[in-house]
Amino acid sequence: MTSTDIATQELENPMDLSEYLFRRLYEVGIRAVHGVPGDYNLAALDYLPKCGLDWVGNCNELNAGYAADGYARVKGISALITTFGVGELSAMNALAGAYSEYVPIVHIVGQPNTRSQKDGMLLHHTLGNGDFNVFNKMNAEISCYVAHLKDPRDAATLIDSAIRECWIRSRPVYITLPTDMIKAKVNGDRLKQPIDLSIPKNDPEKEDYVVDVVLKYLQAAKNPVILVDACTIRHRAMEEVQKLVEASGLPTFVAPMGKGAVNETYPNFGGVYAGDGSNPGVREVVESSDLILSIGAIKSDFNTAGFTYRIGQLNTIDFHSNYVRVRYSEYPDVNMKGVLRKVVERMGKLNVTSSPPINNKLPASEQNSSSQTITHAWLWPTVGQWLKERDIVITETGTANFGIWDTRFPAHVTAISQVLWGSIGYSMGACQGAALAAKEQKNRRTILFIGDGSAQLTIQELSTMLRNKLNPIVFVICNEGYTIERYIHGWDATYNDIQTWDYAAIPKVFGADAGYQARRIKTRDELNALFADQEFNNPTSLQLVELYMPRDDAPAALKLTADAAAARNK
Amino acid sequence: MTSTDIATQELENPMDLSEYLFRRLYEVGIRAVHGVPGDYNLAALDYLPKCGLDWVGNCNELNAGYAADGYARVKGISALITTFGVGELSAMNALAGAYSEYVPIVHIVGQPNTRSQKDGMLLHHTLGNGDFNVFNKMNAEISCYVAHLKDPRDAATLIDSAIRECWIRSRPVYITLPTDMIKAKVNGDRLKQPIDLSIPKNDPEKEDYVVDVVLKYLQAAKNPVILVDACTIRHRAMEEVQKLVEASGLPTFVAPMGKGAVNETYPNFGGVYAGDGSNPGVREVVESSDLILSIGAIKSDFNTAGFTYRIGQLNTIDFHSNYVRVRYSEYPDVNMKGVLRKVVERMGKLNVTSSPPINNKLPASEQNSSSQTITHAWLWPTVGQWLKERDIVITETGTANFGIWDTRFPAHVTAISQVLWGSIGYSMGACQGAALAAKEQKNRRTILFIGDGSAQLTIQELSTMLRNKLNPIVFVICNEGYTIERYIHGWDATYNDIQTWDYAAIPKVFGADAGYQARRIKTRDELNALFADQEFNNPTSLQLVELYMPRDDAPAALKLTADAAAARNK
Repeated sequence: MTSTDIATQELENPMDLSEYLFRRLYEVGIRAVHGVPGDYNLAALDYLPKCGLDWVGNCNELNAGYAADGYARVKGISALITTFGVGELSAMNALAGAYSEYVPIVHIVGQPNTRSQKDGMLLHHTLGNGDFNVFNKMNAEISCYVAHLKDPRDAATLIDSAIRECWIRSRPVYITLPTDMIKAKVNGDRLKQPIDLSIPKNDPEKEDYVVDVVLKYLQAAKNPVILVDACTIRHRAMEEVQKLVEASGLPTFVAPMGKGAVNETYPNFGGVYAGDGSNPGVREVVESSDLILSIGAIKSDFNTAGFTYRIGQLNTIDFHSNYVRVRYSEYPDVNMKGVLRKVVERMGKLNVTSSPPINNKLPASEQNSSSQTITHAWLWPTVGQWLKERDIVITETGTANFGIWDTRFPAHVTAISQVLWGSIGYSMGACQGAALAAKEQKNRRTILFIGDGSAQLTIQELSTMLRNKLNPIVFVICNEGYTIERYIHGWDATYNDIQTWDYAAIPKVFGADAGYQARRIKTRDELNALFADQEFNNPTSLQLVELYMPRDDAPAALKLTADAAAARNK
Repeated sequence: MTSTDIATQELENPMDLSEYLFRRLYEVGIRAVHGVPGDYNLAALDYLPKCGLDWVGNCNELNAGYAADGYARVKGISALITTFGVGELSAMNALAGAYSEYVPIVHIVGQPNTRSQKDGMLLHHTLGNGDFNVFNKMNAEISCYVAHLKDPRDAATLIDSAIRECWIRSRPVYITLPTDMIKAKVNGDRLKQPIDLSIPKNDPEKEDYVVDVVLKYLQAAKNPVILVDACTIRHRAMEEVQKLVEASGLPTFVAPMGKGAVNETYPNFGGVYAGDGSNPGVREVVESSDLILSIGAIKSDFNTAGFTYRIGQLNTIDFHSNYVRVRYSEYPDVNMKGVLRKVVERMGKLNVTSSPPINNKLPASEQNSSSQTITHAWLWPTVGQWLKERDIVITETGTANFGIWDTRFPAHVTAISQVLWGSIGYSMGACQGAALAAKEQKNRRTILFIGDGSAQLTIQELSTMLRNKLNPIVFVICNEGYTIERYIHGWDATYNDIQTWDYAAIPKVFGADAGYQARRIKTRDELNALFADQEFNNPTSLQLVELYMPRDDAPAALKLTADAAAARNK
């Protein structure tokens, strides 16, 4: 009798490890698992249906990783299954992006049998050197927790820890599942106790101390403002921030990565602050403020229009998931959520100045224009007029990621983009995942803006959307190549050109049935008419729109940021 | 004056580093560079044309990596340019495959400015933690040499070493090129001395000693045979092996990964040995031999039909690039090339037995069949009858990789497959690279067999083929999904299904002009007619063929190997 048999005998409610793992995924809200089948994970996939999980079946692993990222940004967490070596390495860019941008993905990798690994067998999907740890090491660099399931006796504990860390630290975790562990028996009774996903409570005395310091400066400030950024969303502080914005009435701004973190219909919402790339009037208000409540900031180059913030640390209080910094005083191991809650309770009446007006009106230059050319200056406010509450808006690295700064959202819009990691092609995969999540939440539209150059990297996820009967609206901005790169270097270089594709014809080639629609839009009138079309506005299947824009046009913020990048590259 | 300026002043013939690097690539035979532009590599790409290098411009980095692999397998070496983080990680699976299968690729990664790296700036394409070494560490695991170009004073030396190691060790090398090094000055006079690509010579006394030992056993053997495998090709010992096969007349066999290493039209060529998956009659001859000259073996699971070799080490002499093993006696640091040359010179007359007959006749079961269904048993000998000298034949992991065991090649065929690494989707990218290399070599056809499931992973490289006006013949085996996986696990599982695509329509959607042809072939008569069509046989542009085969049919060798894999996974 092996030790495993003995362990199994002792279990009152033995459960196959794969079932345990997948039931835990279901428990934290996952309903569909992304990935690509491979021989080291096939037998595990058999357990999905009985655990209430759908299998997405992506076209490749990078796309699956992007899709899992998009799903997680809507649902809170996601799961990805790949196979040893070939599969997990293909997904690596997507996982690194999720690590960089704080997106929680449970990455499960089917591995060869533990005995084959111990024996260093010359198996397919290996480097041929008997080393089965190479890919583990690589993944450890972009995972906030690693669980190697090698022994049924600690496997359930490792799974629970992995999912907990994934949720709390909001980053990918890496779980290896060798083929001989798929059916190993673990204690099913553990499932009666849900995984504790609560963040560790702040030390109350410390929290009160920090709150007092914050209040001292806040109450003394003459023209304080709120600046909301990505980690507000990623570390789930949106509710606390919303209350602060509402209760204080302070002028409130978002960094580009913070789009969607606050209700942009509030009267005290003033638009995007990004240094020189800010919405009109915003820079002046933020940079003349004597106290900026900076919440969840990620001050990366593309999030700050090329490091063009002009905010002094003496005028700043930074709120983060694991520390608060007031001017130059740091308070480590304090989560912003608890602090913000108490600040709202105790702040009283503050000095409130007015916010710059923000809306989706066309800029003066476009209002009286008789041009039918769809320019960025015209497009993004127009999109803002069209969007609906609860829409999910995905923008690709490139012109769309900068254009969206000029769109004021309706309430409860989720914005998805990859401003820090900036991997082109990301948004097509993310759109598949987001659209699937939207379907689970009902009455949400998923809308993607992607450039033609970027679309070519991951085009086959249109097929996955069709296969899963999803109904996103996909705008492919047809502007003849890598426009963002032209602005950085190589204006007319052929390396920034791409092959011309017939995007509108692609869904049909990928097996779309009669329901889908593809359109070519070349004028403002055509787009306005489309936005007024009720059928288009409530799609029941994939809508693809080729949106023709000039090759050399770009949002103003992109031009500034590209100039800064070019200068830094020199 | 900075130290760089001083160093430049001292150079008699200062040359921009990028130009130096690219001229070295040209020198070793590279004429086209694969990759995707990104802002950290753009300025370097400007130097390609003046160095005689074409830019391929792939649709994404994984595909670019696969393509570079295919190009290297035809041309001897290749180059790939990606950008920091996002680009290099996307290509990682391709580079790991090249490392695993001994394919030399010079991977050049555009990085942020060295000053930005030193300052740990929060740039796009980073993990946001100021660590610019993470991706270096990952790549070091799958590169045989790493060159970080950070200082113009040692950059040229590092470049030369990297290219030399890439060639000699026949594996990827990793070169990082920060943006501020692109125009740094190096000593252009170094180019007058070509990089020394010769392998280190064996110690003559040691080599003679090993040759004597080999000859002692070889001359005493009653029925010796030759078994040729992949490292014969990868370590450039094909000429020596060819001479051994010709001069000895010994029965000669190839392992699956050794296909293309010897002239299969020789009378003493006996077909594929792969244990239980061998061609008819081969196993008996090889396994009853009293001396197997095993050259360049990689005894992986898929290369041995699931570890079903029955060869004793007492009857084996192993020849490798860095050691020779005679029975159990190992002779390290001896390259097979020198040893084989002397063995041929000195072996005299050997005991030569006959080889089993091998040809492209249909098996008995198919000869009298009136079926029009294209089965694997019928297809692969038929393909063998159609192939021409100097064809490049690429087979995808899956049914094609096993089917090709039953195809006897004309002379000088190059076979490309990824039997050890086995990443699905590889062959579509590899086909682009191989077809480009074939174009440079003139009068070579590039022929790909890929399954529909695999094609979906990397389909957009059809676009790159069109963009570069390449003329491969691409057979997409339409058999409704991942057949190799069905044989391992999940015969009817939906996770082994795929979305149905209209493959024949894809080239047009990807911008093919009038020249391309797409066809649907569903019967044997149709395929025979196509093979007889002279226009098809000498294509001037892309030819795509949908080849309909039964969902559940597979080559016999695949079935055996899949059974073994399934058993090992348990």
